[in-house]
Amino acid sequence: MTNYEYYFDYAAATPLLPEAQKAMQPFWQQRFYNPSALYLGARENHQTLETARHTIAEGLGARPTEIIFTAGGTEANNLAIRGVLEEFKNSSVITCAIEHDSVLQPAKLYNHNILGVDNKGFVQLNSLKKAISDETVLVSIMYANNEIGTIEPIKEISRIIGEINTDRQKRHVNQPLYLHSDACQAANYLDMQVSRLGVDLMTINAGKIYGPKQCGTLYVRSGVKLKPLILGGGQEWNKRSGTENLANIVGFAKTLSQVRKDYKTETIRLANLRDGFLREIAQKLPSVVINGPADSKRLANNIHITIPNQDNERLTMLLDEIGIQVANGSACSASSDEPSHVLKAIGLTDKAAQSSLRITLGRYTTKKSLKDLSLELAELVALN
Amino acid sequence: MTNYEYYFDYAAATPLLPEAQKAMQPFWQQRFYNPSALYLGARENHQTLETARHTIAEGLGARPTEIIFTAGGTEANNLAIRGVLEEFKNSSVITCAIEHDSVLQPAKLYNHNILGVDNKGFVQLNSLKKAISDETVLVSIMYANNEIGTIEPIKEISRIIGEINTDRQKRHVNQPLYLHSDACQAANYLDMQVSRLGVDLMTINAGKIYGPKQCGTLYVRSGVKLKPLILGGGQEWNKRSGTENLANIVGFAKTLSQVRKDYKTETIRLANLRDGFLREIAQKLPSVVINGPADSKRLANNIHITIPNQDNERLTMLLDEIGIQVANGSACSASSDEPSHVLKAIGLTDKAAQSSLRITLGRYTTKKSLKDLSLELAELVALN
Repeated sequence: MTNYEYYFDYAAATPLLPEAQKAMQPFWQQRFYNPSALYLGARENHQTLETARHTIAEGLGARPTEIIFTAGGTEANNLAIRGVLEEFKNSSVITCAIEHDSVLQPAKLYNHNILGVDNKGFVQLNSLKKAISDETVLVSIMYANNEIGTIEPIKEISRIIGEINTDRQKRHVNQPLYLHSDACQAANYLDMQVSRLGVDLMTINAGKIYGPKQCGTLYVRSGVKLKPLILGGGQEWNKRSGTENLANIVGFAKTLSQVRKDYKTETIRLANLRDGFLREIAQKLPSVVINGPADSKRLANNIHITIPNQDNERLTMLLDEIGIQVANGSACSASSDEPSHVLKAIGLTDKAAQSSLRITLGRYTTKKSLKDLSLELAELVALN
Repeated sequence: MTNYEYYFDYAAATPLLPEAQKAMQPFWQQRFYNPSALYLGARENHQTLETARHTIAEGLGARPTEIIFTAGGTEANNLAIRGVLEEFKNSSVITCAIEHDSVLQPAKLYNHNILGVDNKGFVQLNSLKKAISDETVLVSIMYANNEIGTIEPIKEISRIIGEINTDRQKRHVNQPLYLHSDACQAANYLDMQVSRLGVDLMTINAGKIYGPKQCGTLYVRSGVKLKPLILGGGQEWNKRSGTENLANIVGFAKTLSQVRKDYKTETIRLANLRDGFLREIAQKLPSVVINGPADSKRLANNIHITIPNQDNERLTMLLDEIGIQVANGSACSASSDEPSHVLKAIGLTDKAAQSSLRITLGRYTTKKSLKDLSLELAELVALN
């Protein structure tokens, strides 16, 4: 059994919840039927698919018809950006410099504007307002950053977008302005009610919330127009074709329900653990710098620190040798040789970036495991 | 336990092989690490990913770098068509009328030419030759049809394409001409060596070869240029981003090895069973018409018949009531109300199409189960 307690890379991958694995079990060998077929077993699978969709919709305060299952967060982000920009030809998209590559790369295929962020990673509302023109059809701002934990002001952004849409209507400008948010890192810890957030599109990744990998959803508010990325048999309201992976979808529904059930208590628990660790490490290693915000506008499970003059690869490897896993980068990028674009965007030098660690907590993190991490880390630094 | 023996819809979905499920097991809760991370567990997962890639490449006589993992056959077909046509702007694609919708729908987004087929479903080589112009960059012809089992002459098509490429070189025409083949239904029964087939791109779907659903691969011959459909972290040589579903990929490698190991004997076994059933049903119901080819150019596991004046939905439902699953359509299309475009293309009337059944065999089909099916079918028809 893997020792989850000393695993501190929950932002990169989460272990599957046992109850999700149990729920998925029947769909491999017994209930393997294609949900689009006519016989009873297939129709039952179709019903199960729709029940899972209903569960996920409920978790977001959305309608089932607004849930499009995708093969992961990356695909959902691509569908949001490419889908909308292909639907509204010659329009433009605004996003920000610390987005995940699955937002940035698709955005760069179209007319785009990438907003800078401040030194804590926050998008500046004034810059956003100024950047929006009548050609803008989409603003894509992540809910919470995967490296430094910054929680972006989605509700405020939504308010601005609402005002602009009202103004466009008055001026008989036909172009809508949509708000997409990549909520992959947020789903474990933050309010996810789409109506309260005011998003038109939102990405969730099962693989980051203790569900199966390559499974996710794009919430698409009723009325929002977008073209499919993957065409074929017409599954998912013609927005994502392909025979469904019902095992994954059932597992996803199970984990989303579970994390939504206890996210408030878990957020408080982890924020306390996080702050305790930060106090501890500041005592032991006074030169440590915390990257990202230091208050409630940071994800409860995210710690990101620079330990001056230390090599993060070396620290990562040495910690791994004693059974502790932390991240030296985002791990979302397969080509990890380049310095993080997120750290660059908040003003870190390459040298500081290479002395930085991301420590992300999760359901199995304990006070003891974090205490041990701070001890070991201080020892390794002292030895260097 | 599902009674696989009386399940006759293997073209729509296959149960997961027990050995694949066993191989997948560690990756849910224990080896859940993101293969892009730096610590040992993650690097081991990366190694496992590459081993699986190697296994699949070996099964096709390809190089590991030519294997792109996708979330299923539909995505792989989309990547082939859209990827090539986005790379070569203003070029055109040629495909045929009985392709799966995941080929037809993407093709229709670009300059396209959809070839007709003869009454057995075969593409006519002369028509293909005539249709190719210097603007053509891609020919996409399926290896074997999912409804009527027609095995297309891929090697002959490849030869034609080779000649045209040679001629283009002589004339200093810079545009390449690629051959893509959707081999989703072929992988269980036919030669899959890419060099012998002469394909540049080929789609395989794990979900149709007793592997997990929403997992597949696009073989892309070294040197073939195509743009990614899903961008982000740069996984899969930048051709398909997103954290990998290692459980699925390991299961896929396991099943591909297994089906490639025994495909020749399984093909002979099923072709015998198929022919036995056809003799039997012709005796019991002399008015039955076989759709598609009746010889070695048909998939060993495919039976497609029209029973005049019978309603296929009624037959499907009545058979299901006694525990026998057959298909009244392709089941790949989520909107099953429309008559099959495949049956239309080979000249069936709507009425004949609505009197047609697809019966697809698999690893667990027995002589007895097919005998029982013919008896029950004859009885249901007699009762009507």
